[in-house]
Amino acid sequence: MAREFTLAELIEGVGAGDRRAIARAITLVESRDPAAYELVRSLYPRTGGAYSIGITGPPGVGKSTLVGALIGRLRRDGTTIGVLSVDPSSPFTHGAVLGDRIRLVDHFLDPGVFIRSMASRGHLGGVAEATLQAALVLDASGKELLLLETVGIGQSEIEIAQVADTVVLVLMPGSGDSVQALKAGVMEIPDVIAINKRDHPQAKTMLNEVRAVLALGARRDWEPPIVLTEAARGEGIDELWKAIQGHRSHLSEGGRLEARRRRSVAAEVFALASARAKLHLERAVAGDPELRRLLDLVERRELDPLTAVREILERVFRIEGGSDAADPR
Amino acid sequence: MAREFTLAELIEGVGAGDRRAIARAITLVESRDPAAYELVRSLYPRTGGAYSIGITGPPGVGKSTLVGALIGRLRRDGTTIGVLSVDPSSPFTHGAVLGDRIRLVDHFLDPGVFIRSMASRGHLGGVAEATLQAALVLDASGKELLLLETVGIGQSEIEIAQVADTVVLVLMPGSGDSVQALKAGVMEIPDVIAINKRDHPQAKTMLNEVRAVLALGARRDWEPPIVLTEAARGEGIDELWKAIQGHRSHLSEGGRLEARRRRSVAAEVFALASARAKLHLERAVAGDPELRRLLDLVERRELDPLTAVREILERVFRIEGGSDAADPR
Repeated sequence: MAREFTLAELIEGVGAGDRRAIARAITLVESRDPAAYELVRSLYPRTGGAYSIGITGPPGVGKSTLVGALIGRLRRDGTTIGVLSVDPSSPFTHGAVLGDRIRLVDHFLDPGVFIRSMASRGHLGGVAEATLQAALVLDASGKELLLLETVGIGQSEIEIAQVADTVVLVLMPGSGDSVQALKAGVMEIPDVIAINKRDHPQAKTMLNEVRAVLALGARRDWEPPIVLTEAARGEGIDELWKAIQGHRSHLSEGGRLEARRRRSVAAEVFALASARAKLHLERAVAGDPELRRLLDLVERRELDPLTAVREILERVFRIEGGSDAADPR
Repeated sequence: MAREFTLAELIEGVGAGDRRAIARAITLVESRDPAAYELVRSLYPRTGGAYSIGITGPPGVGKSTLVGALIGRLRRDGTTIGVLSVDPSSPFTHGAVLGDRIRLVDHFLDPGVFIRSMASRGHLGGVAEATLQAALVLDASGKELLLLETVGIGQSEIEIAQVADTVVLVLMPGSGDSVQALKAGVMEIPDVIAINKRDHPQAKTMLNEVRAVLALGARRDWEPPIVLTEAARGEGIDELWKAIQGHRSHLSEGGRLEARRRRSVAAEVFALASARAKLHLERAVAGDPELRRLLDLVERRELDPLTAVREILERVFRIEGGSDAADPR
């Protein structure tokens, strides 16, 4: 527990939007301090006021620059913003070009913005859990808008962004693999698509490819707008913000936002429980000589993998023979 | 259980390389028939003779065409081959251009080749389990080489291919996202890289980008060769095969193959156990009104997500408070 804050002071401080209290709270969450659990539990009834935007996309497309430009745009309206970045190559940590850093320094000093890069050390589940808890802290602190930036290239990696109210997928000319993944249904259709680096000679081609992919699917409740941006020069940011607001007002009708948040909460709780079960399993196998011995037997082909799986599940989770888990009925 | 085969006949038939027995065995595995478990358990001591090659890469790069061309090349040497494809857009199922189908029809009729497309319906863990069990069936049937084709765009999707002895990543000009993912360390470095569609004007650029990424990392035990192919015309296939053989002979020295297979088996058992635990959790939550009620409380912000996670884990897996799972020590 922090020396500077008691738990009660921390709850009070976060609730009042105090920067030092927020920073300390997120550090507790990241270090998986038992006090963090109590803290978020106490803060939870105060959450739900923030609107969250997930910014996802493959590495190198300029997500962080786009986030920086969006912050600049939103601060002109006085909107308070919390930013969590789980991009391992994020400018908030080390991957920045000078221009990004300079732009972000302004935001770091702005009391209406709280920016935090989430350490992606360790397993994906742990980062997801810490990020979602940190988002609750920022929500409870009174920030009106949350930006969750994640690197998405597969399903598990973009899970974090998927809990947001609006999911923005950022692509750039050359993002052929992501376009193919959208086409093949490997990647979910986002709410807004931004094609960054619009000055690139292939930008128009990418736009047409993305349009063609969106035209392929069944009619949707919401057709994702495609916005061309040049984040490094702040171009297209107004249009991007309008597209996000368009989705937000779409959600505001007919109880759509509530329904979406219900699904998100269920998915989130399930994902966290799965990640914890997996971690528990990992530690059990690492710490139990009997389970190590099972793996040795499989390696020597004296025991087949599924029998080993069954015995491990029985031993670690007391799942009856693992057979009920395998049965699709 | 099959009417045509008793379990004993099936074991016998697969061991003798009988096509109908192999087909029936894989169908049992896919349908999660309890007999499949007994079958693979009985066959397991006969496995380990096949050398396995994982072929992975984003959708649309031509993996299946490449697999078809590789089969053609290998059959000239008389090598017997088992092929499992878990690509949802695979030509083995529906996504084929005419040329692919014609080329593959030859292989379908060839008694030295067994090709099977694994249904990717349902969750990823289930497909992974069925595919790995089917690979054991093909291994036990005496096939000398196994080709495991999977669509890789994120970590979980390529797990199946990662258990292979040699992992080939297939890219094409335009695979910028995958190159960036390799660069950012989001995607693991494969053993061999094939750049397909080498006649594309941007093929040389892609080659240089991939070279630059490989040059970035620390010195490796094995430097992945990069091969340019034009699978649709069978070009570069000899070079690709030489690169794969190069990796195989590298593994044959100093017990490297055994060490790699030990790691693969452990990873495989762990992945299957995790997938089963996750499935068990999913069913428990779906079937238990008390657990549904917890989610409702979270949705109404009367209970925080982590407390719900703890209660779910306690109820489903009897994990003590979930806290030991959360504790990193």
